[in-house]
Amino acid sequence: MSFVPTRLAFLALLTLPLQQPAEIRGFSPDAARQQREWESRFKAIPDPARQREYLRRLSARPHHVGSPYQKENSEYMRDLFRSWGWDADLAVYHVLFPTPRTRRLELIAPTRYVARLDEPVLKEDPGTNFKAEQLPGYNAFSGDGDVTGPLVYVNYGVPADYEELARRGISVKGAIVIARYGGSWRGIKPKVAFENGAVGCIIFSDPKDDGYAQGDVYPKGPWRPKEGIQRGSVLDMPVAPGDPLTIGHGATQDAPRIDRANAATIMKIPVLPISYEDAQPLLAAMQGPVAPEAWRGALPITYRLGGTGPARVRLAVEHDWKLTPVYNVVATLRGASAPDEWIVRGNHIDGWVNGAQDPIAGMVAELEEARAMGELYKQGWRPKRTIVYAGWDAEEPALLGSTEWAEHHGAELRQKAVAYINTDGNGRGFLGAGGSHSLERFINEVAREVPDPETNLTVWKRLQAQVIRNGGAVQKREARERTDLRIGALGSGSDYTPFIQHLGIASLNLGFGGEDGGGVYHSVYDTPQWYERFSDTSYVYGRALSQVVGLSVMRLANADILPYQFNNLAETIRGYVGEVKALRDEVAGRIAETNRMLDEGVFVATTDPKDPLQHPGREALPPYLNFALLDNAVDSLTRVAGAYERSMVTATRGAVDPTRAARANAMLRDVERAFTSAEGLPRRPWYRHLLYAPGLYTGYGVKTLPGVREAIELKDWAAAEREIARLARAIESAAGQVSTIRATLEGR
Amino acid sequence: MSFVPTRLAFLALLTLPLQQPAEIRGFSPDAARQQREWESRFKAIPDPARQREYLRRLSARPHHVGSPYQKENSEYMRDLFRSWGWDADLAVYHVLFPTPRTRRLELIAPTRYVARLDEPVLKEDPGTNFKAEQLPGYNAFSGDGDVTGPLVYVNYGVPADYEELARRGISVKGAIVIARYGGSWRGIKPKVAFENGAVGCIIFSDPKDDGYAQGDVYPKGPWRPKEGIQRGSVLDMPVAPGDPLTIGHGATQDAPRIDRANAATIMKIPVLPISYEDAQPLLAAMQGPVAPEAWRGALPITYRLGGTGPARVRLAVEHDWKLTPVYNVVATLRGASAPDEWIVRGNHIDGWVNGAQDPIAGMVAELEEARAMGELYKQGWRPKRTIVYAGWDAEEPALLGSTEWAEHHGAELRQKAVAYINTDGNGRGFLGAGGSHSLERFINEVAREVPDPETNLTVWKRLQAQVIRNGGAVQKREARERTDLRIGALGSGSDYTPFIQHLGIASLNLGFGGEDGGGVYHSVYDTPQWYERFSDTSYVYGRALSQVVGLSVMRLANADILPYQFNNLAETIRGYVGEVKALRDEVAGRIAETNRMLDEGVFVATTDPKDPLQHPGREALPPYLNFALLDNAVDSLTRVAGAYERSMVTATRGAVDPTRAARANAMLRDVERAFTSAEGLPRRPWYRHLLYAPGLYTGYGVKTLPGVREAIELKDWAAAEREIARLARAIESAAGQVSTIRATLEGR
Repeated sequence: MSFVPTRLAFLALLTLPLQQPAEIRGFSPDAARQQREWESRFKAIPDPARQREYLRRLSARPHHVGSPYQKENSEYMRDLFRSWGWDADLAVYHVLFPTPRTRRLELIAPTRYVARLDEPVLKEDPGTNFKAEQLPGYNAFSGDGDVTGPLVYVNYGVPADYEELARRGISVKGAIVIARYGGSWRGIKPKVAFENGAVGCIIFSDPKDDGYAQGDVYPKGPWRPKEGIQRGSVLDMPVAPGDPLTIGHGATQDAPRIDRANAATIMKIPVLPISYEDAQPLLAAMQGPVAPEAWRGALPITYRLGGTGPARVRLAVEHDWKLTPVYNVVATLRGASAPDEWIVRGNHIDGWVNGAQDPIAGMVAELEEARAMGELYKQGWRPKRTIVYAGWDAEEPALLGSTEWAEHHGAELRQKAVAYINTDGNGRGFLGAGGSHSLERFINEVAREVPDPETNLTVWKRLQAQVIRNGGAVQKREARERTDLRIGALGSGSDYTPFIQHLGIASLNLGFGGEDGGGVYHSVYDTPQWYERFSDTSYVYGRALSQVVGLSVMRLANADILPYQFNNLAETIRGYVGEVKALRDEVAGRIAETNRMLDEGVFVATTDPKDPLQHPGREALPPYLNFALLDNAVDSLTRVAGAYERSMVTATRGAVDPTRAARANAMLRDVERAFTSAEGLPRRPWYRHLLYAPGLYTGYGVKTLPGVREAIELKDWAAAEREIARLARAIESAAGQVSTIRATLEGR
Repeated sequence: MSFVPTRLAFLALLTLPLQQPAEIRGFSPDAARQQREWESRFKAIPDPARQREYLRRLSARPHHVGSPYQKENSEYMRDLFRSWGWDADLAVYHVLFPTPRTRRLELIAPTRYVARLDEPVLKEDPGTNFKAEQLPGYNAFSGDGDVTGPLVYVNYGVPADYEELARRGISVKGAIVIARYGGSWRGIKPKVAFENGAVGCIIFSDPKDDGYAQGDVYPKGPWRPKEGIQRGSVLDMPVAPGDPLTIGHGATQDAPRIDRANAATIMKIPVLPISYEDAQPLLAAMQGPVAPEAWRGALPITYRLGGTGPARVRLAVEHDWKLTPVYNVVATLRGASAPDEWIVRGNHIDGWVNGAQDPIAGMVAELEEARAMGELYKQGWRPKRTIVYAGWDAEEPALLGSTEWAEHHGAELRQKAVAYINTDGNGRGFLGAGGSHSLERFINEVAREVPDPETNLTVWKRLQAQVIRNGGAVQKREARERTDLRIGALGSGSDYTPFIQHLGIASLNLGFGGEDGGGVYHSVYDTPQWYERFSDTSYVYGRALSQVVGLSVMRLANADILPYQFNNLAETIRGYVGEVKALRDEVAGRIAETNRMLDEGVFVATTDPKDPLQHPGREALPPYLNFALLDNAVDSLTRVAGAYERSMVTATRGAVDPTRAARANAMLRDVERAFTSAEGLPRRPWYRHLLYAPGLYTGYGVKTLPGVREAIELKDWAAAEREIARLARAIESAAGQVSTIRATLEGR
């Protein structure tokens, strides 16, 4: 392998002076030069062929949490890390993990149909031929139950859909709802169904979204075959992910556990995911009003809302509720000079079945990063800070492995963690980046250093072109004129959640995609063969991911001054404040308009007597809110962010004063924590970040400024005022911290 | 029947002073009082039961142009008019009317499928049981031909769809295109296909638009059954409707006729409409790129674009091209004091098959208006002006009956016609009104006089509520604050076209709809049974239509001063001018943005190497245009319109000076003509109106300010400048006329 650094050193000599600025955020000029040398060597190491080899090995058989193959995988990876010079171990927890014992779905009227609930083995893909080891299609943390009732089609099953049903006089009380995947995270569907009185919930994959309407189905093409089932968790993760019996603390062997009967995040009603082959006879049997146009999928039927009959189903689901060991892989490269500052990076390792794309395609990039760092280490490279590389088990059922580890080590992590970087699978196309906006400038800089495999451009440049091509007017302008491409805020759906939202650790979530697509998500068809035919076929985006994440980790690990930046953060928060102001006005406007239309008799005048709709009710107009608190706080943060930036640039213009830097870094690490609140968010204290949270009623979808935004959405104006004040205090406190850090950097 | 006026007179006494203002636009106070008395009597006469009886009679059998039953229907209606005291006759023309001799469509590769091309008789609906008399599914004025080629799916088949295909490198040269109904008038599809080099065109009804995706299909529900075929004309009517052998003059027995080979408006390639049952095997056999999301319908297949193979079809269509007699019914009530001022009103009488909804539901309203006026006549009512009631034959193939009559009597009509009022079928729900904006105020006033059958409101009030409920922000505000609800501009698709767009006669098109729906349009399933189950089931909207149109005719016939109003017209034109300005800027902006993206390399950077798209070409930026000419002209019209309005109000405040009124009316009648140009529009001289035309590439869809707008769309900037100047002159000339009329009214 010695040719690799040699070639790279040559290339570095040739290209560095011309193409690359010496400056790296947070590095003195000398340190930056050394850093670039190591980065050049690093970038040459990750190897597509090795990623292919790992992926084929790790996804060869089903490897869900608790399966023998998953334990084997964990041990295999632990040993790989060790072979590369890392200090690696398994971090074991014991979590509640239900697996299905009974799954039965039957149309009992007006005709009879017994759902197949099975994904056949494909002779074309031996990766599907592991019936005995596969978990069948089910939703983890569904309730147990055997229920019978009329069917109601609830579209995506979000609250707005129930408002639409109510306008048509349709209630789900005592009914079994059938919802399609999409439009929200799946766990929202049974939760809202239960809140509305339903006794069961069926979730189907509509061919419009990931089946034949999109293209040829597997094995001919990448899309979902008619029998394909999307497994997935329905634990109430927007309230708290992780083991429902040990919320807030690690599920160690001897951890205190609550009774399952008291576990708030387990669904109360039975839930079952089905294929579109099984959904069609159910939907076709329904009567009642025709579904609104936006609710219709691609099945060759009239989508109807159902209601009192004639279609009735029986749904029976029963689980084995047992404690199951979780085998996280945790590997460490100890920091040379600041071992108590940790850079944590993870990807999950459990799949619902063979899980090639989700999650292994991301894990194999992580492995190649680790191998490359091991190589560099042998060549003399030393991280200043400690690097922690993790493979999380049991992400699929409820982010179990990461959450238990993060809770278990919560105090230490809150003290030591500088950043958490997550990936979760990988694909082909454009870099996707989300995360803390204190890292927005940082990740933009890294993305400018990595070549895109399909063009002669950097991944940054290609992403910029994509935003210019497809963005709206504002996005286009910003992509052209703003220094940095915007990164999205994080909601949930992967292992960054305990780090950013519970512990307040600045986080990033990274991955490539947009040129692949398909319908094998969480099915038996997510196999190496599928991945190598339809996704990152030559693993070159796997290499690019290793390069992006590896550089990120190396810069965070060795920067003289931690590379957070607060101008973008302040500007982004200002944008969010603008959004919640507009939201309040929009809610107020909608109420005023509805009241006015009621006064005018518009609903009475326009109702079709043959298809009448319920009229909306009159509502009180909302008060104006004291957004000035937020405006003032954001102004404070904006001012100190600008001043900090100037001090930081000055401090890294020459050799960095190590004492000042050490004091500044210790405080910088904590700025993200200033945006958290020990009491957490209303109705979900586990979530402590006041800037970012998954939506209580969107699931994966992020709600920024969640306390304020959700109070407005729920029209709880007193709560909105409280949340505004609390958030303003947090922003002011962060501004104060940044101001102190600036003084420290300046030696004041 | 004597009880009717008695009851009404009583009601009038009771309600008039309280609810109805005495004023009627164009009437002196005395005249208005008399008019109201007659209107009250009139409104009580139209009878749902009689409309039902007529509809069942007229739609009992197929009655397309040239069929024995259509001639019987014409004679029956002529006799009805006569029985009610009208002077009625058949106006006979001899037009080219092709009927199919061969219809054959066959998938020949990769598998074989012979299209059924047949709509089965339904035992549930005896109205469908007339195989021997029915015209089968075909497109009138398709070319003859027997062609074989690969299939290409072209979505709606409009020019933008071909741009999308070109971006994917797909050409239709030598291919047979398959287009779905919708998105444009059907005749656009083969025209654009031919212009792009296709050799044949198939048009199918997608179940997404009017089949099972919308609801239960006939006979269970109102929607299109799988075998249902939408017949229809594909004559190039946006160039000129009417007999293609006698464009511009009436197709009398001995009219000069051109050779069919030279007829420019007949399609050059074979065209055939098919059902979705026949479309599915064709579409399913296609390969090539997956169709863009917006192109996908509701068939349970992957919609693909096709191209070079493997799907190949043979399409053979051959017609009997014969001259066929057209039997228009034309009935007259001669005006008492101004017989040379004509109010013309029509609805067509031919159906594609039984045609209950289209057109008979509108014709039965017309018949009841005529009967009611006959009744009033017996009671002493006399129209000042001549009323002409027409039933147009052969509308379906090409507006043949109305166009030949209008061309034949063109000179006289341009001299005498005050207005043309059209209906074309009828349904249930809300009043739909389109037409000349000089009549916008007028029809708003009439709509305030007619009760909606489903509410206790006027049809105006109900429509206002509908716009408030469903409109955008501007529409809502206007519906609340503007005196009048806006009426749409007229494109084409019914018999108003020769009157407004060829002759420059102020026109209105009226009908109810929005609470019905269905998929029997132009099929054998548009029967009395269908209509009475799913549309205006009790004919109460038929009565409402009689009331709206009857009052309109009676007011136009007896106003002291013709009730045109020009403020709304000027304001509407100002809005259109704003639109064409914005269109120029939008085209310029789009070109500038594309050029910029080419400079930036955005297309190269974002292209997916596994699914590459063609990059757009660089284009020259458009010049700025001299819209000041239009702004000045609209200002002139706005000023004189305001002044005219004041004079008109003053003139009708007391007894109206008959000499002044007669002179003013003679000129008022001609104002609409000022917006026409003898040379007609570019590329289609038959169309002479400079404010309204059907789009050359949208068909039914209107293009307002068509010369200017289409020049901009085609990026012909020199033509745009010419058209701006010509239009400005026309508007200035109209302003001059209105100014003269005002002086006349004031006795100057």
